[in-house]
Amino acid sequence: VHEFDGAHEDVEKGEYRHFMQKEIFEQPAAIQRTLQDRIDSPEAVSAAFGDRAEAIFDRVRTVQIVACGTSYHAGMVARYWLEALAGIPCQVEVASEFRYRQHVVPEGTLFVTISQSGETADTLAALRDTRSDNYVGRLAICNVDGSSLVRESELTFLTKAGPEIGVASTKAFTTQLAGLMMLVLALGRRHGLGDERIETILGELRQLPNLIEQAAALDKPIEALSRAFVEKNHTLFLGRGVQFPVALEGALKLKEISYIHAEAYPAGELKHGPLALVDKEMPVVAVAPNDELLEKLKSNLQEVRARGGELYLFADKHARVSDGEGIHVLHLPAVPESIAPIVYTVPLQLLSYHVAVLRGTDVDQPRNLAKSVTVE
Amino acid sequence: VHEFDGAHEDVEKGEYRHFMQKEIFEQPAAIQRTLQDRIDSPEAVSAAFGDRAEAIFDRVRTVQIVACGTSYHAGMVARYWLEALAGIPCQVEVASEFRYRQHVVPEGTLFVTISQSGETADTLAALRDTRSDNYVGRLAICNVDGSSLVRESELTFLTKAGPEIGVASTKAFTTQLAGLMMLVLALGRRHGLGDERIETILGELRQLPNLIEQAAALDKPIEALSRAFVEKNHTLFLGRGVQFPVALEGALKLKEISYIHAEAYPAGELKHGPLALVDKEMPVVAVAPNDELLEKLKSNLQEVRARGGELYLFADKHARVSDGEGIHVLHLPAVPESIAPIVYTVPLQLLSYHVAVLRGTDVDQPRNLAKSVTVE
Repeated sequence: VHEFDGAHEDVEKGEYRHFMQKEIFEQPAAIQRTLQDRIDSPEAVSAAFGDRAEAIFDRVRTVQIVACGTSYHAGMVARYWLEALAGIPCQVEVASEFRYRQHVVPEGTLFVTISQSGETADTLAALRDTRSDNYVGRLAICNVDGSSLVRESELTFLTKAGPEIGVASTKAFTTQLAGLMMLVLALGRRHGLGDERIETILGELRQLPNLIEQAAALDKPIEALSRAFVEKNHTLFLGRGVQFPVALEGALKLKEISYIHAEAYPAGELKHGPLALVDKEMPVVAVAPNDELLEKLKSNLQEVRARGGELYLFADKHARVSDGEGIHVLHLPAVPESIAPIVYTVPLQLLSYHVAVLRGTDVDQPRNLAKSVTVE
Repeated sequence: VHEFDGAHEDVEKGEYRHFMQKEIFEQPAAIQRTLQDRIDSPEAVSAAFGDRAEAIFDRVRTVQIVACGTSYHAGMVARYWLEALAGIPCQVEVASEFRYRQHVVPEGTLFVTISQSGETADTLAALRDTRSDNYVGRLAICNVDGSSLVRESELTFLTKAGPEIGVASTKAFTTQLAGLMMLVLALGRRHGLGDERIETILGELRQLPNLIEQAAALDKPIEALSRAFVEKNHTLFLGRGVQFPVALEGALKLKEISYIHAEAYPAGELKHGPLALVDKEMPVVAVAPNDELLEKLKSNLQEVRARGGELYLFADKHARVSDGEGIHVLHLPAVPESIAPIVYTVPLQLLSYHVAVLRGTDVDQPRNLAKSVTVE
């Protein structure tokens, strides 16, 4: 097994031009650290959430996730996993919305917050509001030990991403996803997810650092691709199912650091409105590992080819698709379905990074944004 | 009571320049027809959903709404209402996503589809997929009697919007919302929503045609406002709570007919990313009836004033806010909270309409879009 030692992982940029770039390439090591000693057995998986995890997880029947920004996108991925793998109903909501809304708490609900800093104001306030509610427990998925979110939750999963300096979150997001998959396995074991399937996914998680490294090795072709976006002011990101939140996160990264107005849609909604926007000024990026979605996308986009609409596909290397008129394909390594959203995140991070560098923006400190949003 | 007779409601444009314009102004009559004889008593409300409604509604404990595009936004509004007024958990999902995802069906779930035409391909396919699932019933909220969705559902609520010719939906949306509020009352009555509260909301629904007419009477000031958007290629729409889907619908209208890249965010998420985009090229439209949100928005936007960010507020006439440097306010009539999302939709429709007319696009037949999306 290749070792990712993270020895250079400190608050210096070292050989890198920007912290964000360094943090993208630190992801294999960050994920390895986050999984280390925690996925050797199903019991170890539960233990990573704290001493009281076994007792609380036994009582969980539904999950409510609350987060902001990038962490909210991690929660959206977890929802797909929880419902598909564990058969556990899950709701995900933006913290500032959840706080101000009357909502119903079904019996047996686990309340999950996700935040890199553990100090995000709206998320923390949402957690504090739960005190009078009948949750079976509160779990914080967080990168900072001792933070408010961690101190005020019964259960904690610490992502071991190390310090994240770039305002646009990268390694915090992918380590959150690794932790959330562990949560799905821990809860799934209690809801009919078989031992064999759990062992298979644990094995796939062990491959994750290597697969992330392979995805990051596409840096040069992605840099070449990024030139097509430098002069644009718009981009549409499309994904379906568990890849829709990956598309949302790809759009958010591009927004944050390149100031390109990028927006994500579930692919099937394209023809219900946004298709009117597509022309040569609005490139379309699709996260589309599988062939079925590709065929539908190609037919949707056929009619806008005449106006210069260009499609950029991030697809599996076995997908039956290749470059053509108005279609540009970046092939990724073959990835197990369980961890595909984590791996597909990486090329989108690199795309945003290179576009921002070419546009000359302040990559690590984008205008108007703070690293931790500690005000409402 | 003022009468809205709808005598001119046919498939001719009459005095109007576009069908969409005509359909916006037909909304008081369309809503009056939709509510007529159906909100005289709580029993009449249930009866509007069909003979089997009483029996099926008695068994409902949760609601799953599935729809596409504008109808999906109507479903999002209904979710807020259902959880806040009736205490009934509700999930809303885009049909093309719901279809391709493994999901859990909690006991006592009512499956609700929303579609103007009743022939939307993804929504119809999602309905057909429910046959093997354990739903207590299937309800179609639809504008076309005898459509596939209506024929294949146990319950139907017919919106009586009349023919809608403009591709961008207007009166179909607001009549869907009126029907959805009736559903909330019918289900709420079985879940502890008191008779007095129900009577109050029924009274407020009776005011709706008049309030919509008052909102539409702001046509001239909105036309004046629209000039500020003609040269822009971006717009950000913000809303909170039940007004967030209204912001989403406002952004979708502007996208569809003016080809301006408009995107909506829950207001609290602004500082988690999109704030980086705001400058003089990206006006911000906020649907903000109440003062609390206004204060937070103003502080969020203060720092972008230096780069020319402009805020356009749609606010209650009693809101303590007025025009100022970089802030433009359109005051709406005072509206009961229950029906505010329906009324606030109208000025956003008019804004999109006037921007599109000034930009010279084909308002009734926007490029690439079909009225009913009967393909996947």
